[in-house]
Amino acid sequence: MSFDPSTLTYDSNGLIPCIAQQDGTGEVLMMAWMNADAVAQTLATKRVTYWSRSRQAFWIKGETSGNTQELVDLRVDCDSDCLLAIVHQTGAACHTNRRSCFYTSVIDGEEVELMAPMT
Amino acid sequence: MSFDPSTLTYDSNGLIPCIAQQDGTGEVLMMAWMNADAVAQTLATKRVTYWSRSRQAFWIKGETSGNTQELVDLRVDCDSDCLLAIVHQTGAACHTNRRSCFYTSVIDGEEVELMAPMT
Repeated sequence: MSFDPSTLTYDSNGLIPCIAQQDGTGEVLMMAWMNADAVAQTLATKRVTYWSRSRQAFWIKGETSGNTQELVDLRVDCDSDCLLAIVHQTGAACHTNRRSCFYTSVIDGEEVELMAPMT
Repeated sequence: MSFDPSTLTYDSNGLIPCIAQQDGTGEVLMMAWMNADAVAQTLATKRVTYWSRSRQAFWIKGETSGNTQELVDLRVDCDSDCLLAIVHQTGAACHTNRRSCFYTSVIDGEEVELMAPMT
């Protein structure tokens, strides 16, 4: 069945969360939001494109930083209300220049930084 | 620094998305939502506990199905508005009895089912 981005379930702001995961290593890099046009653009260009809630604009990942996400696969969850983008991440995914946004662990009641910014 | 769940950034419904990832394999299993009490309960019990938006109630993952998620690590992202739970998933994470909710690929314009329900 041909895929139509408008069939996904978007929230009241017209957005759907998208998790980015590095192909091969399985590392979860970040989570950001897409609208239907960003989903369509991501599939068409294979350059992962989010919707920036703060800027209210398309956010072609890495367009200014060079830290692009090349789409390898896009997966939809069982409820069609969350996406998983399997990507090739160039450099850091996080705006703090860390590989992943999930660099803080809180498992034992303390916040522990798991990784340093890339140099 | 001691971790306080109330310091996370919640949406207008008081919820934060939480991605569940299998420890070791890196498989992304599902994404669901937590409120501050669910985060605290997850950390205290090491049994991943979401907030069910449809039932408006705590959802102790696997409580009825037996498909529990044992917490290995809980990570917070750079903006404190998304969580990543590293878990030991027993059986299927998805209500369709598949290991992961992300069993549909849409990469080449077609929806392709990547995995069958567990038997």
